[in-house]
Amino acid sequence: MEQLKPSPPNSSPLTPLTFLERAATVYGDSPSVVYNSTTYTWSHTHRRCLQLASSISSLAIRRGDVVAVLSPNTPAMYELHFAVPMAGAVLNTVNSRLDARTVSMILRHAESKLLFVDAGSASLALEALSMFPSDKPRPRLVLVNDDDVAHVPASVDFIGTYEDLVRKGDPGFEWVRPVSEWDPMVLNYTSGTTSAPKGVVHCHRGIFLMALDSLINWSIPTCPVYLWTLPMFHANGWSYTWGMAAVGGTNICLPPVLHRVEALGFVVSHGYGLTETAGVVVSCAWKKEWNRFPATERARLKSRQGVRSVSMTEVAVLDPGTGSRVEPDGLAVGEVVMRGPSVMLGYLKNPAATAACMKGDGWFYTGDVAVMHPDGYLEIKDRSKDVIISGGENLSSVEVESVLYGHPAVNEAAVVARPDEFWGETPCAFVSLKEMPMTTEKDIIEYCRAALPRYMVPKTVVFKDELPKTSTGKIQKFVLREIARAMGSPSSSTLASKL
Amino acid sequence: MEQLKPSPPNSSPLTPLTFLERAATVYGDSPSVVYNSTTYTWSHTHRRCLQLASSISSLAIRRGDVVAVLSPNTPAMYELHFAVPMAGAVLNTVNSRLDARTVSMILRHAESKLLFVDAGSASLALEALSMFPSDKPRPRLVLVNDDDVAHVPASVDFIGTYEDLVRKGDPGFEWVRPVSEWDPMVLNYTSGTTSAPKGVVHCHRGIFLMALDSLINWSIPTCPVYLWTLPMFHANGWSYTWGMAAVGGTNICLPPVLHRVEALGFVVSHGYGLTETAGVVVSCAWKKEWNRFPATERARLKSRQGVRSVSMTEVAVLDPGTGSRVEPDGLAVGEVVMRGPSVMLGYLKNPAATAACMKGDGWFYTGDVAVMHPDGYLEIKDRSKDVIISGGENLSSVEVESVLYGHPAVNEAAVVARPDEFWGETPCAFVSLKEMPMTTEKDIIEYCRAALPRYMVPKTVVFKDELPKTSTGKIQKFVLREIARAMGSPSSSTLASKL
Repeated sequence: MEQLKPSPPNSSPLTPLTFLERAATVYGDSPSVVYNSTTYTWSHTHRRCLQLASSISSLAIRRGDVVAVLSPNTPAMYELHFAVPMAGAVLNTVNSRLDARTVSMILRHAESKLLFVDAGSASLALEALSMFPSDKPRPRLVLVNDDDVAHVPASVDFIGTYEDLVRKGDPGFEWVRPVSEWDPMVLNYTSGTTSAPKGVVHCHRGIFLMALDSLINWSIPTCPVYLWTLPMFHANGWSYTWGMAAVGGTNICLPPVLHRVEALGFVVSHGYGLTETAGVVVSCAWKKEWNRFPATERARLKSRQGVRSVSMTEVAVLDPGTGSRVEPDGLAVGEVVMRGPSVMLGYLKNPAATAACMKGDGWFYTGDVAVMHPDGYLEIKDRSKDVIISGGENLSSVEVESVLYGHPAVNEAAVVARPDEFWGETPCAFVSLKEMPMTTEKDIIEYCRAALPRYMVPKTVVFKDELPKTSTGKIQKFVLREIARAMGSPSSSTLASKL
Repeated sequence: MEQLKPSPPNSSPLTPLTFLERAATVYGDSPSVVYNSTTYTWSHTHRRCLQLASSISSLAIRRGDVVAVLSPNTPAMYELHFAVPMAGAVLNTVNSRLDARTVSMILRHAESKLLFVDAGSASLALEALSMFPSDKPRPRLVLVNDDDVAHVPASVDFIGTYEDLVRKGDPGFEWVRPVSEWDPMVLNYTSGTTSAPKGVVHCHRGIFLMALDSLINWSIPTCPVYLWTLPMFHANGWSYTWGMAAVGGTNICLPPVLHRVEALGFVVSHGYGLTETAGVVVSCAWKKEWNRFPATERARLKSRQGVRSVSMTEVAVLDPGTGSRVEPDGLAVGEVVMRGPSVMLGYLKNPAATAACMKGDGWFYTGDVAVMHPDGYLEIKDRSKDVIISGGENLSSVEVESVLYGHPAVNEAAVVARPDEFWGETPCAFVSLKEMPMTTEKDIIEYCRAALPRYMVPKTVVFKDELPKTSTGKIQKFVLREIARAMGSPSSSTLASKL
């Protein structure tokens, strides 16, 4: 057939920013963001974002410049998800629970030109800025609340408050459309469960598709009420920030801790994604026929990560030795790989890390270890870095942890490799206990022996009041791994007893 | 910021064909297609499509070859929407209500290599094939039902029946993925309300996005039951053919005529799209606050075409004189233009027609005339070709028709231009009546005079038992326009009375 080429009417760059002006038309009088006593409508949000984008542009922010934000879930945080890219800039939401040293490092690595800071993060931001070497340009500062203005030192280029920028902006601003749908739109630093933070770059096309994909995958209707429990700084709230504009949803911003949600009548679903995929790209799509199974079987099925979402092209589990797909038998472990439009462009200024996961064979390597079940649903077994190799056997730390969680005294558990002269590595368990302080290392080990093959039983148990976690509640195994490494190999007497 | 480029893990071509294997995984035991006493599951449909695609490939059908289908809504018609592009070919569903001459012309223009024909269309297909000049290669023939086999003449290259191809195919076939997401996937001939059919080409990317967009725009949940009322040959059923695989829907195929659906509790919604946009890209998104309006006001609001769907980039109404946007006042008329990912690649082998609507300014020109209301909702007033220019005044035939429909005796009405020596053109009304045969031309004209400015009142009224329509029920104005043209200018006595 004659070859017809793309042309301007059909190849305008995909971008989720177009959702906002549509929301202002269709849902203009509907609430967009609710926060304490403040309620905005989609008309307000649209106008405020245009004004803010106009002000950001007037600060000599150019296409591709990075604009950073330190904020919990607030209307300002939500608006910046539109306003920053509408000024042509790249949005970098920084985890506000990080220490000043890491924040400072991220701001320098991203070469941020502008930094928006919420009240609760003002001292963190000022400390991070104070750590800049004198020859490194610092981002200019905007404060969301004027209470903090008095504390800004003269060395910081302080522009003013957030509402100043909104007020001064032009609501008729012609927002800066991407030249290509592959233009960068957001930059998110990985939370660092396994290594130093890397800057994940996503383009307008990837975010557009992730936002639509998430709406379909989770059957979001029009005008939903969306209760924010995830911080928006975490992978942009899995792209629901923009998705809510596509369906005219109401964003409820508050910091609740939800307990016993299922008992309250909520349906809990399970998804899997990475900062590198801009949101949830694998989920345990539920089958009606599973409803008739007993609760334990339903829980087992629900705990599997599941199948790819509709916009992902392929997700597979590859044998690390042969590079081919593992048998779909629920037993053979391999690495989860994927390809699809919401896989990141790459890591900022880190071609080695990018090349290590975006390989010549066309797959993105997640670093997660999984099995494929016969029904085509995958189940994560471990981070590939968390696999423990003991006496030549590959050992899933997650499987050991699942046994530990069955012990009545165990509150939290994490298992990592401890170096061992004889076995190479042995499992070392870090455990925090419920209110039962009489539990001993011996109790735990004996409990595991009854449930696990010998080589999988932890050889060491370390009790902690609480395990170290990331801002999103993931246990930081790299911290525990460092502790286990510092402990070194067990004494030779222990070695003898093993033999 | 450092420029990161697309790479294989994130730039795999978008295609709705990936929905099918996912549906077989997630919804394998759920019904996919129900037709009379036949029910297939998504596992069946997936396997049958792979087998069929394998057989099509084995017939020396190559990437980009056209495969045509003449069929009503049946399981075979549904399966071919996947199997043909899974063989790398381009699907051309031909309107089975066309005459043999037009079908023959379409098959030759598309250079179809293969033709699938349902029982009801066998004689139409054979007649169309018999009209091929002897030097033109004819497509090879597959019949869905074996009842018709005896009638196939020796001159036709008859391959066998549809189920033969399914049976012989390999369920492990590696389906042919598009090399680029811009590769052609479907070819649809316009139904020809205004001119000769043109072959609209859509690519995998456009169809992928249209399918997802339609699911979001109409809030389709997972596992819906979808009652097919639109023929799939009409713009591929607005891309719901593929959309149903994305959400594991059940396609109910039957030919019902739905009357009084609203009284039965259905919610009727209103959308606007063109064959050139692969589906509905503008719809009258409903606002909750409109529910409190009286029924007449609700009907007025609902009759507007509305706003763009989430995946479209922009839709506007342009003043034909200045090329800039018309005032959003609900009065100024202009042409509807749009850009977005589901705008066609172009018309097959028709660069002049393509260039006439896909212009250098980056817009696709729809040929439809509309106004933009102050709230950002557009309302179609007419096809631009249907505008009547009488005495230098532009006159919307749709406005005259809406008055005619208010007359108690009028069943159907269409107004076209009749040539006039003095006025240039005058409105000529074609009317079919309800069971009230005593209504005269004079009655109709006087009724219009009470409601319309003088220049808009039809000067001629032609009564018909029924007005000519396309297969999708649209009145064929080009037929009426030819009749009006053949009538010529009114006699000079009429002319004198006008003066």
